[in-house]
Amino acid sequence: MKLKLAILPGDGIGPEIIDQAMKVVKVVAAKFNHELEYEFALTGACAIDELGAPYPDSTHELCMNADAVLFGAIGDPKYDNNPKAPVRPEQGLLLMRKKLGLYANIRPVVTFPSLLHKSPLRRELIEGADFVAIRELTGGIYFGEKGRKDNGNTAFDVCEYTRMEVERILKLGYEYAMKRNKKLTVVDKANVLESSRLWREVAQEMAPTYPEVTTEYMFVDNAAMQIIQWPKNFDVMVTENMFGDILTDEASVITGSLGLSPSASIGIHTSVFEPIHGSYPQAAGKNIANPVATILSAAMMFEYAFNLMEEGAIIRKAVDASLDAKVVTVDISTEKPYSTSEVGDWIAEWVAK
Amino acid sequence: MKLKLAILPGDGIGPEIIDQAMKVVKVVAAKFNHELEYEFALTGACAIDELGAPYPDSTHELCMNADAVLFGAIGDPKYDNNPKAPVRPEQGLLLMRKKLGLYANIRPVVTFPSLLHKSPLRRELIEGADFVAIRELTGGIYFGEKGRKDNGNTAFDVCEYTRMEVERILKLGYEYAMKRNKKLTVVDKANVLESSRLWREVAQEMAPTYPEVTTEYMFVDNAAMQIIQWPKNFDVMVTENMFGDILTDEASVITGSLGLSPSASIGIHTSVFEPIHGSYPQAAGKNIANPVATILSAAMMFEYAFNLMEEGAIIRKAVDASLDAKVVTVDISTEKPYSTSEVGDWIAEWVAK
Ligand SMILES: CC(C)[C@H](C(=O)O)[C@@H](O)C(=O)O
Ligand SMILES: CC(C)[C@H](C(=O)O)[C@@H](O)C(=O)O
Repeated sequence: MKLKLAILPGDGIGPEIIDQAMKVVKVVAAKFNHELEYEFALTGACAIDELGAPYPDSTHELCMNADAVLFGAIGDPKYDNNPKAPVRPEQGLLLMRKKLGLYANIRPVVTFPSLLHKSPLRRELIEGADFVAIRELTGGIYFGEKGRKDNGNTAFDVCEYTRMEVERILKLGYEYAMKRNKKLTVVDKANVLESSRLWREVAQEMAPTYPEVTTEYMFVDNAAMQIIQWPKNFDVMVTENMFGDILTDEASVITGSLGLSPSASIGIHTSVFEPIHGSYPQAAGKNIANPVATILSAAMMFEYAFNLMEEGAIIRKAVDASLDAKVVTVDISTEKPYSTSEVGDWIAEWVAK
Repeated sequence: MKLKLAILPGDGIGPEIIDQAMKVVKVVAAKFNHELEYEFALTGACAIDELGAPYPDSTHELCMNADAVLFGAIGDPKYDNNPKAPVRPEQGLLLMRKKLGLYANIRPVVTFPSLLHKSPLRRELIEGADFVAIRELTGGIYFGEKGRKDNGNTAFDVCEYTRMEVERILKLGYEYAMKRNKKLTVVDKANVLESSRLWREVAQEMAPTYPEVTTEYMFVDNAAMQIIQWPKNFDVMVTENMFGDILTDEASVITGSLGLSPSASIGIHTSVFEPIHGSYPQAAGKNIANPVATILSAAMMFEYAFNLMEEGAIIRKAVDASLDAKVVTVDISTEKPYSTSEVGDWIAEWVAK
C-alpha cells in the first residue's frame, strides 16, 4: 500500500518526538512492504518566524494532498501573555482544523498497569479505566463570530452549532459505542445553553436509531466531577468543542500518562494524528521529552487513516514492551531514565526484530 | 444586632438541610444576643408547582428586603431531560442571580484531615490544600443573547463581558489574595476567545496596583489539569461564569467533602449563602442528607453578610467537633451513621453549651 504523509513537527519538543515516531513509521512500512512517501512542513511559531503565518498555504497544500498528517506540537512562550499579539501559533492550529475539516478529536483514555502510581487518583478508581472522549473540533465558540464593541470595552464570542454538525459528531459517537461497550454519554449544559439544547434534542432523536446503545445525558459540571470520581463508568463520551477542550485535558491527567496519550483528529479532507501534550518549550532540544504519545499517534494513524490494524498493533506491543523493560524517559522514571532518541531507537528496533 | 434573613429551602433535600442550619442560626443568635427575624419563601420546582414561576416576585421582594439569604437547593427530575420544557427550576436560580446582582460566587476549597480518605486523589496531593475559587456569576454565556435560526436548526449563545464586570470580579480576587497568600490565578482561554482576551487585558492593567500579589495566568484546559495534579499550588483562583461552573465543581470533588462544602454569592442588593451540592432528590424526605454544607454556609453568612467573625468561628468549631466525634451522616461514614436531624441537633447543642 502507498502511504502518503505530511509531517508537521511544529515547535518546542515537536521535532524531537516526531523524529522518533518517524523511525518507527519507517520500520513498520518496511516490515509490511508499504511504500512510504512523506514531506515535512512548518506550522506554529516556527512558521510565523520563517514564513509569516502559523499555518502557511504551502503547509495546507501538502496536508490536502496527504492521506494522513503526523503532527508534533505548537506554541512558544514568546507569544503567550500578550493578548494583543497580531498573530499567534494557536491560530495556525485552529486554521488547520477548519481548513482540513477536522471535525472530531478522538482521545482514548486508558491506563497502563505499570504507571498507575503516576496517577493523581487512587489506584482502585482508575485500574481498568478505559474510555474514549470525542470532542467536536470545528464548531462552537472557537469558530463563532467574535469581537469588541463599545470602544473595545465589551468583548463577545458567539457559540453556534448547526443540526448537521451535531448529527455528524453524535453519529461518530454512536458508531464508537457500538464497537465498544454500548454506552454513550452526551455532555452538555442544556439547563442553560440553547446550543446545548440543540445537542440534546438531536441526541434524543438519534438515540432510537441505536437501540443497543444506552444514551446517558450529563451536564458538563457534573461530568467534570464524574471523570475523577468514577472514571470507569464511561465508555464513549461526546461533547462540544469548548467543553471537550476542558474535559479531555482533565481526563488525560487521571491515567497518569500524559506523555503517553495520543489523539486522532478525523477530517473531511484528511486526518491528523498528534500527541495530546503541548510543545513543552522548557525541554526543547534536551533529548528528554517522552516520544511515546507521538509514537502511539502513529499507531492510531495506521489504524484510522489506512485501516492497517496489524501495523498499529505491533507499535502498541512495542510500546508495552518498552514500558515493561523500563526503557522510559525521565517523566516516567527518574531512576535510570533513557533519552528521547534512545526510547525511539528501542521501540523501532523492537518492531524491526 | 438585628439579623434579617430570607430563607429559601428549595427542592429535594433543601427543606431538611435548611432546618438544621436554622437550628444552628437560632442558637448562635441567642448566644450572642442578636435579634433574629426571618421569613420563608418558595423557589425552584416547588415554586413552579405552587406559584407558576421558579423565582416568584414575592420571593424576590423578600430577598431584596433581607440582609442575607440562606438557600437550600433546587431541581427536580421531572424537569430534566426535557429540552423543550417551557419553564425550568434552574431559570429561577439564574433569575435570582441576575435580579439580586449576585456577581461573585465564592467557594473555599479546604480539606478536613479526618476525611482525606474520601478524596479520589492521593492523600499527599491534597493534604493541606486550601484555596478559594471565585466564579463570576451574572455575566458571560449564561446571560448573553441566545436563540435559534434557520427554522430551529441552528442554535447560538453569546458570551459577552464588559470591562466593568471583569474589573469588579478581579478586584474581589485581588482583595482575597491580599488577605491570604498573595497569589491570584486568572483562568481564561485568551488564546482563543475575545472575551478572555479582555479578561487578561484588564488583569494585566490591574496587576501593578497590587504589587504584593503574584498574578498568574492559566488557560482553562490547563487549570482543569492543575486542579487535580497540584491543588496545593492555588491560593485564589478567579474565572468567568461558565469556566467557573466547571472548575469549581471539579475542585469540590478533590477534597472528598462535597457534602461539607459551602458557598457565598456576593451581591449588589443582598448576598446568598448555599451549599454547593444539589437537591439530591433520591434522598429527599429520608432524613439522611448531610446538613453540614448548609450549616457552614450559615457560618459564611455571619462572616460575610454581618462581619460577625466570632459567630462564624463557633459554628466551624462545632462542625469540626462533630467530625471528630464521628457524628456524621451516611455519606461520610456508613459504619454508624447519624440522621440529618441528629447531626443538626448535635451541632446546635455544641454551639449552645
Ligand atoms: C492551543 C489551543 C488553541 C488548543 C485548543 O484549545 O483547542 C489546545 O488546547 C488543544 O486542546 O488542542
Ligand atoms: C443549575 C445550574 C443552572 C447551575 C449553574 O450552572 O450555574 C449550577 O450548576 C450551579 O453551579 O450553581
